[in-house]
Order: sequence, then structure tokens, then C-alpha cells
Amino acid sequence: MVLDRLQQLTMQVSASAPPPHPLDPLTTTEIDTAVGIIRKEHGKLNFNGVTLYEPRKDQMMAWLANPDGTTRPTRAADIVAIAPGGKIYDGIVDLDAKKIIQWKHTPGVQPLITMEDLQEVEHIVRKDPKVIEQCGILGIPPQDMDKVYCDPWTIGYDERFGTDIRLQQALMYYRPHVDDSQYTYPLDFCPIYNAETKQIIHIDIPPVRRPLNKAPPNNYHVESVEKEGGYRTDLKPIHITQPEGVSFNVNGRSIDWQNWNIHVGFNYREGLVLNNITYNDKGNVRPVFYRLSLAEMVVPYGNPEHPHQRKHAFDLGEYGGGYMTNSLSLGCDCKGAIHYMDAAFVNRAGASTIVKNAICIHEEDAGILYKHTDFRDESMIVTRGRKLILSHIFTAANYEYCVYWIFHQDGTVQLDIKLTGILNTYAMNPGEDTHGWGTEVYPGVNAHNHQHLFCLRVDANVDGPHNTVFQVDATRGPGEVGSAENKYGNAFYAKKTKFTTPLEAMSDYDGSTSRTWEIANTNKLNPYSKKPVSYKLVSREVPGLLPKEGGLVWKRAGFARHAVHVTKYSDDQVHPAGRHVPQTSGEPSQGLPQWIEQAGPNSSIDNTDVVLWHTFGLTHFPTPEDYPIMPAEPMTVLLRPRNFFTRNPVLDVPPSYARTPSQVAAGAAACGCSNSKKNSPDGSSVLV
Amino acid sequence: MVLDRLQQLTMQVSASAPPPHPLDPLTTTEIDTAVGIIRKEHGKLNFNGVTLYEPRKDQMMAWLANPDGTTRPTRAADIVAIAPGGKIYDGIVDLDAKKIIQWKHTPGVQPLITMEDLQEVEHIVRKDPKVIEQCGILGIPPQDMDKVYCDPWTIGYDERFGTDIRLQQALMYYRPHVDDSQYTYPLDFCPIYNAETKQIIHIDIPPVRRPLNKAPPNNYHVESVEKEGGYRTDLKPIHITQPEGVSFNVNGRSIDWQNWNIHVGFNYREGLVLNNITYNDKGNVRPVFYRLSLAEMVVPYGNPEHPHQRKHAFDLGEYGGGYMTNSLSLGCDCKGAIHYMDAAFVNRAGASTIVKNAICIHEEDAGILYKHTDFRDESMIVTRGRKLILSHIFTAANYEYCVYWIFHQDGTVQLDIKLTGILNTYAMNPGEDTHGWGTEVYPGVNAHNHQHLFCLRVDANVDGPHNTVFQVDATRGPGEVGSAENKYGNAFYAKKTKFTTPLEAMSDYDGSTSRTWEIANTNKLNPYSKKPVSYKLVSREVPGLLPKEGGLVWKRAGFARHAVHVTKYSDDQVHPAGRHVPQTSGEPSQGLPQWIEQAGPNSSIDNTDVVLWHTFGLTHFPTPEDYPIMPAEPMTVLLRPRNFFTRNPVLDVPPSYARTPSQVAAGAAACGCSNSKKNSPDGSSVLV
Repeated sequence: MVLDRLQQLTMQVSASAPPPHPLDPLTTTEIDTAVGIIRKEHGKLNFNGVTLYEPRKDQMMAWLANPDGTTRPTRAADIVAIAPGGKIYDGIVDLDAKKIIQWKHTPGVQPLITMEDLQEVEHIVRKDPKVIEQCGILGIPPQDMDKVYCDPWTIGYDERFGTDIRLQQALMYYRPHVDDSQYTYPLDFCPIYNAETKQIIHIDIPPVRRPLNKAPPNNYHVESVEKEGGYRTDLKPIHITQPEGVSFNVNGRSIDWQNWNIHVGFNYREGLVLNNITYNDKGNVRPVFYRLSLAEMVVPYGNPEHPHQRKHAFDLGEYGGGYMTNSLSLGCDCKGAIHYMDAAFVNRAGASTIVKNAICIHEEDAGILYKHTDFRDESMIVTRGRKLILSHIFTAANYEYCVYWIFHQDGTVQLDIKLTGILNTYAMNPGEDTHGWGTEVYPGVNAHNHQHLFCLRVDANVDGPHNTVFQVDATRGPGEVGSAENKYGNAFYAKKTKFTTPLEAMSDYDGSTSRTWEIANTNKLNPYSKKPVSYKLVSREVPGLLPKEGGLVWKRAGFARHAVHVTKYSDDQVHPAGRHVPQTSGEPSQGLPQWIEQAGPNSSIDNTDVVLWHTFGLTHFPTPEDYPIMPAEPMTVLLRPRNFFTRNPVLDVPPSYARTPSQVAAGAAACGCSNSKKNSPDGSSVLV
Repeated sequence: MVLDRLQQLTMQVSASAPPPHPLDPLTTTEIDTAVGIIRKEHGKLNFNGVTLYEPRKDQMMAWLANPDGTTRPTRAADIVAIAPGGKIYDGIVDLDAKKIIQWKHTPGVQPLITMEDLQEVEHIVRKDPKVIEQCGILGIPPQDMDKVYCDPWTIGYDERFGTDIRLQQALMYYRPHVDDSQYTYPLDFCPIYNAETKQIIHIDIPPVRRPLNKAPPNNYHVESVEKEGGYRTDLKPIHITQPEGVSFNVNGRSIDWQNWNIHVGFNYREGLVLNNITYNDKGNVRPVFYRLSLAEMVVPYGNPEHPHQRKHAFDLGEYGGGYMTNSLSLGCDCKGAIHYMDAAFVNRAGASTIVKNAICIHEEDAGILYKHTDFRDESMIVTRGRKLILSHIFTAANYEYCVYWIFHQDGTVQLDIKLTGILNTYAMNPGEDTHGWGTEVYPGVNAHNHQHLFCLRVDANVDGPHNTVFQVDATRGPGEVGSAENKYGNAFYAKKTKFTTPLEAMSDYDGSTSRTWEIANTNKLNPYSKKPVSYKLVSREVPGLLPKEGGLVWKRAGFARHAVHVTKYSDDQVHPAGRHVPQTSGEPSQGLPQWIEQAGPNSSIDNTDVVLWHTFGLTHFPTPEDYPIMPAEPMTVLLRPRNFFTRNPVLDVPPSYARTPSQVAAGAAACGCSNSKKNSPDGSSVLV
């Protein structure tokens, strides 16, 4: 920390330090400056978030188009702070002019719960007499209260308490030993914590009590594994090395790799934000996406018994995917040659903080990129692919979310999410019926059904800002079998439905038509296919929102009602469940539904600057193999160029092996490609 | 080849050579022996296939249960041969007793088209006067007939010619230069070839002619790339090494790896066949699958104009995924430490042949296997996973199919298929309307819409042969929002529907319920969850068969009518479109529909030896970036243990990093796991 500050000071005094890119996250210095300016004017505050106030898009686009001839967008800080008494303030500080340009009290909202907010609950819970009493009822004596733990969650929304009091619910656990997994010992009651008064204001107690689980611990730590027979010894190491270094260049936070250019942003809310993504198509730098991020998520649990309906965490909007981010380690989280980036935040007291190695940037071999053999003569070409991976991992109490933004050489952008960590668990009595709302994953441990629904925000810029979204369905051709037009019944085509309004664009996944969506630039046609250049959203893990229409989650998580929404771009529409998510009632539904209502459901989204919001994820019915810690479960979304290029854009990737028919005929023995030999890593492969 | 024979002779004379495993593919010696026995009795024949006649399952199961106390299943050869005059014979030779145990003439069928069958068509086409005439009409002079090429396809089914004449259709192309991609120069007519008389018996000529494409070549070979600016030089090598060797043991064709045991079979039809797959669950060797294979596929094209309806290749049943298999190369097809296996076939003349390196077996790092950080104190565990990959690649004329059977440490079996190679193309005139049945991917080149539908055959053995299949749908709970039972509307559960009959089991994918299927052993309940031990089929690329009900493809590819079929096991039911696929009319539909009809659609498949047939794949609407060679497009199917284990089975995989709360509190700096240190490959990672 001291070192970081010194480095920052050094940067400040160095006259030659280049100014940050307008989309760079705030530095610690900038955070400190912003806090100082606010403090000077408004005195003591608890800081909830200080992050880059992103340049308005029109200014930013103008600057990107002509950096030398356009005014550089101002550096500014977006601030959320809580004043004494719980008043919420939203502010903007101009860091260039060093002045406050917005400062307003926002009534009736609760900003997200920070790690510091979470940390303090457990200590208070342990000392609360009513909690101690409840623990006693379950079989935990008062002297064992140091063995009582809680995962504090946002309360979701509880109509008994509304929005004005800043609350957390404490999901209660017990650890026989400090190293035991607490999730084997869930407690059946749920205290509610007032963050302003730092008191337990209520305890929800179920009608049927469930005494403390008597089962032995179910652990995953080293000692327990060694006690149970030890580790397997038959895994031989795999070494992944890049002796000549990586194939990407990092300039500030801008990455050049295999025709891609990507600016890597990060904020406390969404975590990774990728900006101004372009693809150099043979010298023509073509914009693809202005901004990509995971903008929100919701994890509804399926047990209707009170108060489990409150378990539906908006992990990004209610806690912050950036705030919860892990500091990554070489060889553990990523292997090979890694470039890391840190992340800067503010703490409650207003000081800047750093998470080292918050972002991992590395390459991986991607297997066969393309291959073909001519069956006539075995003339052949085979080329291996490479991928660039930008990742971060965040821990949301029990769960881990590993987020991988993967860039492929062929123009595909892939978002992979791996889910791991630990199931949220609840107590159950021996022989108790789960009623199908959960699974007994270990004696006395009920893991409830749940969904993980992510909202991908695609701020498209496919060959320019004016884009149009189409729904594409694989559809049988007209004409019955035997008819002149479809005699053998084999006709089928891609049915494209243009979304001209946000109302039309509210669309669900249809597996039966292999539905995809295309973000097209209808002003630019592919010269060969005569179809608009486009990027296609290919997503196959798209469960519907299972909580019912009109219910609590449906109201609060408006973005999750459909697989796709499309809106006209607006600078302030980034968070699809609203800017401040905790304790929203969903009446009216914040974020997407509100914006669509405001803009008009029948307003035009045809050939304009559009944002596509895609909700995807999975429904998890737990089983014992997910416990006591879950093997990672992966999920994938693709954004693929379609009619974007005039040909396969990776033909110039050096092949591993290539031989033409004439070379075969001439008896040429080897690969004809000198470049590929130079770059070929094959020499290092080991034949057993 | 000479060396192979010598090796075989050496094996024969060595008295100590162990007998082959009953499921091992036939050796070249065994193939030669079988052919010799048949020849002696039946004289000159053209051999279409000689492969292992697999042991009957009851014998095999008895032997597997007690190899020392049970008669070893006989080695036998399954033979298909064509006698002069085109008579088809199906035979079985007992290789132990050295006698023919079955030899029967099978009328009204055509066995698959071998590579030799395919090879000869082009030469005959070039000399055929009517073909030369047609070429002339399109602008190709007779002296350029050496530049005319054809991809011979099975004819599918053409009602004008029926089944009795052995036919191929010749998809015609032109190459300006021998190294040019012919797919840029499709010719518009289609000769039909009689394999018996070796003559062109008919030419299908379209009503509107399309002269030879005038566009310049669109190539992917080295010279063309170098002419267009050369290869990119900014890819730095990635080295993947295993200095201590691989983590698997190969004993004959049996592989031990990370608690898995897998027998690796191979035949000319299905390619890779995985047998007797077991998982060692802490000393308890539990059967999982008796046999896994890709059993069939169909690639229907969506252009209804005659004669394109004939383009619907059954690549396995009509050509053989084994026959078309590539010989693989280190560093090109697979990287790292590789174990290869060869494949033995018969040629038309009856001699055994070998494809070297037909199967690649290797390990890969699988990223994070599990991870969790306690937000309280940053106590943490992170473990990296490993996967075992068994792969083969086959070239079906224009397309390449890369098949990867991936075994995960956590009990998951993953089938990945990568599609690459070249689009099937057809001629089009300048400005011609494709009517949506295809895309102009390059001037004058029409790539038709098509589907790739694969049929995965799962011969289940989940904790024993008596299994039951359930359909699982994520389903909203009963009770409207506001009701006592579902006040907040958040109730949802996994609705399980038992398939008691083949009729019930004919089921389609439903993306809206995230439908999966479970192969369960209802006789064995998980002790914690009280649910049957099971393996779940998770498959998300499941388009319906787009050719219409009652049409040609629908009739011939009965297996593709539903995502899932379930049948009671029968030894002879391996090929879901029938044993001999070419030129079947689909009246009646061979294979699956016939078997279900025979067994009775309402016969019981409850708690018995069942086979699950899963059709999955994708619908491909081509675009210019797929041309002139397609970047690989991947597809995934998972078989995941659910309620099979009592806990996460990979807790004993050495972590990369682990620190408990008490170690954090004690200020312990390092990972507590000595085993992981020993095995950790982190030392090789390079920090940039």
C-alpha cells in the first residue's frame, strides 16, 4: 500500500506521464482527489463508490475519430456516498477542473452493500442477545458464539421494512472448528441487520425448528483430505511456457492482439468492461463493439417458504462484481505467460485501495483453427488457433464466478463463465421432505434450487454506431411434401425478423428454431452475400426466469423477463436493474422496463445506436457431487461475425502443416510454409 | 506396410503374446485370416468391410464380471462383401474356430461407399463423352478435362433408380490450376455413376444453366497467402510439455486415468468406440457406460431445387467415419505428450490396411477445477483440473469432423465435435436469387443451408445394466403469486418424467425448460439425496430435423426425428439408420423406427438394459467468413454424474494453493499441501 502511494506520487510529479485514456479506470490518485474535493465541500461521509464517470458517448466517439483535433473528454468521478443519518448522495466531480459538477440527495434508494458493510455484521450478530437465544434453542451454548458465522446478504426486498432503512439479512451458520466448512451447519433462523444503527432489528424464525446438524464435518481442506487417504499422486505436471513472450502488446490499458484492439476497463460494479473493440481487417480498422460488460445478474432461489424468497442476490448491482474480485495467482488461476492489471477502489472512509492482479490477460492454444485434407491425394492444411483471455474472478459469499472474455483470431468474441465455490445451504431435519425445492446434499444440509441469470450488455458498434437487431430462426420452407416448390420436403432457411421497436425486441429463446440474434449494420452490405455486415449472438444456455410474472423477483429483475431486450443508446442506461439495486420493491421495476417505458415501447430502434441486453445462465438443481465445494460448471456465449468479412479472416495464421496437390505429386516431403516453421511451437512437443 | 506385416508375424509366432481383449478391434492378421477363410469358401469377392463382430453383451458382461471363471468370448469378424454381379453378402467368421458361422445374401441393400469406391469415379467422369459435352456447354474445352474434378457422394435415394443399382452422384467442380480450390468453380450438372458397370448412367441438368465461374481463385494454400501479403509474424510460440510423461496408463487398448478406465475400440463405421467405461469411486469400481459411440449422422441440405434434395449425407452409415479417418500429426492435430493408436481396415481386394495414428490420446490442463475464497479472511483453495482427450478426425469429402471424447476428473464425459473443412458449394449466375436456400459466399459460389445432425449412442450401465431414463424440466411451482403456497411466486423444481415405453421416450428438446435427460439406476439411491444414481445428458445444440415429416430425409433418417429415443438393448441394434444405409428409400424407415415398431412402441423400457439415442448438432447458414475454408465451429454434449457420488469426487486432486482460516490467522505464508507442491507445474509458468 505504501509502495502504491509512492508510485502514484511519482507518477504525479513526472511531467512526462501520459494522460490516462479517457476510458481508463480512475487511478488511486484520482480517487483520492475526488474524495478530497467532495470532503472539502460536504464534510464527513461514508463512501460507497468512487469510479470513472465515463465520457459521454458522443464526445468519446468524436475524440476516438480525431484525437488530435477534438477536445479530450474530461476525467470525472462518479460518486456514491452516505451521509450521517443514512442520506444517499450521488455526485460527479470534474477531475480536470477539480470541481463538483453534480451533488444531489437521492431519497428512497439504497446503494450497494460493500465488503466493509458485509464484514461488520458477523461481529454484531454474535453479540446480539436474541441471536444468542436462538442459537441456544438450536443447541449452541452462549460460550460457543465465536463458532457462529453469518453470510450477510442484501435483504432483497422485504415489504415489512421497505427501502428507507438500510438492511442486510444474516444467513446463519456454525463451525465446530474454525477450519470446518460452515455450510454443513446452517442455522434455521435469519436475523435482519440495520446498517445505520448497527443493530439486529428482527429475527425470522421458522415455524418448525431445526436443531444444529449432528453430522460430522464435510470439508475440503488439506488436512481433511490427508486424513481421508491423502491426495492422488498420479497427476504428472503439464508445463505451458512462452519462451519468446506473449503475442499481445499492452499500451496502457489498450491491448493489441491478432488484429484486435481492446481497451480494458474495470469498475467496482461490473468488474471487467471492454471498450472500443476494433478488428483490423487488412488495414481497415473496423469498430465492432463500443462497450461490452456483464451488467447485472440475479440468482433467484426456488423455495417458496418464507423467508427464502428473499434469496435472490443481484451480485453485481447489490454487491459489485469489482468489489468482490479476487487477487489472482500465477499457476493457480491462470497458467502460462500472464499480464496482470490491478483494480483501484475507494473504501468507506474515503481512501483509495488496490486489489493487485485483479485482471488476468493471457493466451492459450485453441486447438485446430481449420483443417482440410483432399481425399484424392492427402494434400492437406492444418492450422492451430490461439485465443486471448481477459479474466477476473469474484467471490459472492458462497459462490465463485470466474469470468473469461475470450477473443478468437477469427473475429469471435466468447464470454465464458465458470461457476464454482459452495452451494448456499439451509438446515433440514432428519427425514424432512424437501418438497422438491432443494436437495439433501449431505445429512442435514438442504441446497435449494436456484438460477444464475446474467445480463450481458452489448453496446454494439458493428461497422459504425447505427445498428439494427434481427431475430433469426431456422425455419422450414413453405410447401407441403410433394408440392412443386418443396417436393421432398427438405427446404429450410434463416427467417429474419427485424426489431423495429423495444416492444418487438423483447424476445425469448427458442431452442426449436436454434434462435440467434444478429446485430447488423444495414447500411453496409457484404459485397458477396449482399447481406448486412453483422455480429450474431449465439447463446444456448438461456433458461427463462422461473419466478412467476408479478412476483417479487419478476418485479425486481425486469431485465431477466426476456432473453433479449434492445434499447436505443442512452449514456445513463448501464445498469439494467437500476443504479441503486438493494431494497428496490420492483414497483415500478427499475432499469430496463423503466427505460423502455420512458422511451416508448414503440419508439424506433431501427438503424440507430442500439444496446442489446442478453439474459442467459443456468438453472441449478443441486446434487451431492456439488458438495462440499462445487466442481466448476462452465457456460458460454458467443458473438460471431456473420457476413462481416469477405472471407475467412485467419488464412494468414501460419499453418502447422501444409502441402498442396502439386507438392504431393512432386513428392515434396515437408510443410511448404517457412513462416509457419519459424513460428511453429511443435518442436517442444514430446512424443511418448 | 511391410514393417507392419513383420510386426504382426512376430506377434503371431510369439507364444507369450497375450490374447486380444474381446473388444479390441481386429488386428491386420485377424482381418487377413477372416478374408482367407471366406475366400477359400466363396472365391473372388470385393470386400466392403471386415471388422470385429462384437461379443454378445450377455457373454461379455459375464466375462467382465469373472474373466478367469468364464469362457472368453470368441473372436469373430463381421464381414460385408460384394460378389460379382453386385450381390451383397453379410457374413460372420469365427476366428478362434476358423470357420464361417454365417454367410447370407442380403438382397435389396447397398453397403457403404468406401474410399476406393469414391476414388474411381473422377477418372471415369473425365472420360465420359456426355460429361465432356456438358463441360463444353459451361465453357470447359475437352482438352481441359484433367481440370475437372468431382466429389462423389452416395446418391441418397433417387426414386428413378431405386436401390438395386449401386450408385454415386458426382458433384462436379473445376480447378484452373491443380492447387486451386475447386469449390470456387462448381459445375451445375450432376452425373450419376453406376459402380457395378463403372459408367455414367444419367446426368441431371438444371433448367437454367450456369456457365463456369469467372471469378479469380479463392485459395488458402501457402503460395496464395504469401502472394496476398504473407503470414502474420506476431504469434509467439506456446510450448506444452510433460517432462515426467503422461498421467495415464495404456494397457493394450485399456486406459487408466484419474479413476477412469476406458477400453478404446475403433471400427470403420463409427470410428472411435468407447467400451466398458468405469469410474473407481474410492476403491469401488462402478460401471458407467457399456459402450459410447457416434453411431450415425445426417447432413440434410435445405435447397428444394432438384436434385439437391439428394444432398443429405449419412457420413457414418454411407461412407464410414473410420474409413475416412485422418492419420494425425504431433503439433498439428494435438499438442503435448501424445499416445497414438492405429486403425486396421480391409481394402476392396481383401488385404488388410493400416491408418497410422488414427486415434490421439492426450491430456490437457482444464483450467480451474474448483475454487473458493472466504471473504472474511481470504482463506482460500484453488485447484486446477485436467482432462483426458481421445480424438479422431475424419474427412467427409469437403468437410472435416474432429471428434473429441473428453473425460473430466469429476466424472463428466464430454463429447466435443469441431466442424471445419470446406463448404459444399454450387454454381450460381451473377445476380441470381438464392431464394434464401443458400448464401453467395464468393462471386458465383452458392453455399446451401444445411444441418449437421449427429446421433450419439449411449449404451448405459449406470451402476449396473438396469437403467431408466427420465426427462427433466425446470418447472414453475404451483400456486399463483399471492397464494399461501407460492406467495412471492419464486417456487420452482425439477419435474421428472419417467419414460416407461419407447413411445413415451421419443422426446424433443425444450430450451424453455432447460430440458435434460437422466439415465438413472432406480435400484440404487444416493444415500444423501435419496435420488437414484444417474448420469444426466446436458445438450444445448439440439435443432429439430428441418426436413419435413413424410419427406425424403425424414423417412431415411428416422433417428433424427427426435432429440432422444430410448430402446431396450439388443445386440444387433447399433446403427440407427440401419446396417446398410446407401439408397434406402425410408419406406419403411430403417433402424430406430423399425426396432421400436418391432419391439412394440408400448413395450417396457423401465428398469432394464436400455440404450439412449441422442440426436444433436447444428444448422448452418453459410456466410463469406466460412469460405474458402471454415474456421472450426465447436459443439458440446455433456454426460454428467448427478446423485451418483456422495460428494465432489475431486477433493483429492492436489490444490495449487490452499490456506485455511487457522493458517491465515497464524500468518502461515504458503500452501499447506505438500502433494500439490510436488505436482505443481507452476514453476514453469513465466511471468511477463
